[in-house]
Amino acid sequence: MTETRLDVLCIGNAIVDIIADCDDAFLEREGLTKGMMRLIDAEEAVRLYDHMGPAREVSGGSAGNTAAGIAALGARAGFIGQVAPDQLGEFYRHDLTATGVEFTTPATDFGVPTARSMILVTPDAHRTMNTFLGAAQLLPASALDAAQIEGAATLYLEGYLWDPETPRYAMVKAIDIARRAGRKVAFTLSDTFCIDRHRGGFNQLLDDGRLDILFANEAEIKMLAGTDDFEAAMAATQGRVQTLVVTRSELGAIAVQDGARAEVPAEPVCKVVDTTGAGDLFAAGFLAGQAQGRSLEDSLVMGAVAAAEVISHYGARPETDLKALVARRLG
Amino acid sequence: MTETRLDVLCIGNAIVDIIADCDDAFLEREGLTKGMMRLIDAEEAVRLYDHMGPAREVSGGSAGNTAAGIAALGARAGFIGQVAPDQLGEFYRHDLTATGVEFTTPATDFGVPTARSMILVTPDAHRTMNTFLGAAQLLPASALDAAQIEGAATLYLEGYLWDPETPRYAMVKAIDIARRAGRKVAFTLSDTFCIDRHRGGFNQLLDDGRLDILFANEAEIKMLAGTDDFEAAMAATQGRVQTLVVTRSELGAIAVQDGARAEVPAEPVCKVVDTTGAGDLFAAGFLAGQAQGRSLEDSLVMGAVAAAEVISHYGARPETDLKALVARRLG
Repeated sequence: MTETRLDVLCIGNAIVDIIADCDDAFLEREGLTKGMMRLIDAEEAVRLYDHMGPAREVSGGSAGNTAAGIAALGARAGFIGQVAPDQLGEFYRHDLTATGVEFTTPATDFGVPTARSMILVTPDAHRTMNTFLGAAQLLPASALDAAQIEGAATLYLEGYLWDPETPRYAMVKAIDIARRAGRKVAFTLSDTFCIDRHRGGFNQLLDDGRLDILFANEAEIKMLAGTDDFEAAMAATQGRVQTLVVTRSELGAIAVQDGARAEVPAEPVCKVVDTTGAGDLFAAGFLAGQAQGRSLEDSLVMGAVAAAEVISHYGARPETDLKALVARRLG
Repeated sequence: MTETRLDVLCIGNAIVDIIADCDDAFLEREGLTKGMMRLIDAEEAVRLYDHMGPAREVSGGSAGNTAAGIAALGARAGFIGQVAPDQLGEFYRHDLTATGVEFTTPATDFGVPTARSMILVTPDAHRTMNTFLGAAQLLPASALDAAQIEGAATLYLEGYLWDPETPRYAMVKAIDIARRAGRKVAFTLSDTFCIDRHRGGFNQLLDDGRLDILFANEAEIKMLAGTDDFEAAMAATQGRVQTLVVTRSELGAIAVQDGARAEVPAEPVCKVVDTTGAGDLFAAGFLAGQAQGRSLEDSLVMGAVAAAEVISHYGARPETDLKALVARRLG
């Protein structure tokens, strides 16, 4: 196998987060289910934005957050995603590049703007996402750089990208290129509603042996396995993938790798402000740990440290020196 | 005098803040003076942005922040400022409107984008602002709505707007309209470099009796008066304006109104994160207090409470319920 240029290459929806506070009554009035991600069209995006409070805009997108976290932890990260040639697209590129992520997918004018997700944060720190996919859903397979994929030790994909057809096709092609080059493929299940829409496709990826690492939270692994029993869901899934990583919020996280199981508690957080990006940064910490040759348990600790940082403030990208936090925790 | 529709109508640069952390070495490398605001052109904006770390985008602009604070405190606020018909302009309008501020100045395509200020925050929470004025510097006098100005009890203007010629002319015209209608005119000195550029013009406004309320911080009042002695600067200025409000960071604030003097200490803050907007929100609290018929001292306390909130997080707009904070403090 040839040398790698990147540790992890992430493919995902290139989305700017527009984050506002709201109360539970607002979610109810708008008919929104707390904690979920829903896709909305341009018209609904305008309508909801009109109702929303003043907001912060921060670059986001699940796999983009993971790429930013990996780079912040000192590993080599790349990102593939589609932005439009507009101000949001410029922000998106700047923020990733400034974090040290290789992001070379060109901006393309498809006549739709860069994606944005209106994220409503309730006082309990839970986030409810309303995503207008715009240009992100038009990532063409032709935008993939085969040499870049072949040069990345791990290809990382977000389940959300399975929703629109065009990037799903690009993702399947990317998996093929990675596998042929003998690289690992990692996948995150993203969201229970997303699994509900694509359970067949996700299970097929596992059964075809096309995934090496699977990330999920407790609700997602249960949804995928079709059971309400957590340990039964773990048992049903862990044999179908080399590495299974499952996060359980304040209960910590579990990984099963080649039959060995490791478990860590959640890292303490002074005040949970906004849980957006918790799973994305957990994946970042775990993947950076694995890239750095750390043990399964230490990789989980790195995930927990990165997740704890990101939920302590608004926005899904790290705002503190993650390397220093990990060094303090693991030495 | 006819009834008022607004308590305070603010005119200012409509600017989106792009906020990133940096260290002192970065400021030095870029040749920037900590704590200052400088105006930059499009080329320098691109160059500096390329060097900056990942950022948050939040609506800002001095008078816009003040308008948002006034509305958040339950008083009736309006804003006049120029945005372009682009994504930043849409954010700007949304954020002000969602706070309850009347903002009807139409977006206009002058071929330049909406203004943005790249704000670099050092670990000591001080901010250094690099402002590309874009559309903001093209606010034409024709965009003023005379009836709106006549219907506002107080017209509030930012010194920054004195820099570009076009909005300076609009501002002078707005002062005329307000004075003819018997309304009060308030002015903030904004920045010592700004005073250095316009000391003559600012002193002329005072000497012509065109200002009723003047806001400054300690450095600014000294700069305007041309003395390093704080009390001498107060003495030289307080007779030239009905109400003089001077903030002194952690030393609190002083107001002199019709010869009576009030003084309050700074409100305690757990952790100062980003001082951007401290003066803007102090002005908001003071003006809202005056609009609500509160005493000079209680108006100062409201200023201190609003300023303390805004320096406890990134961004220059309130993120907590200011009305509740004031109610807790003043009952």
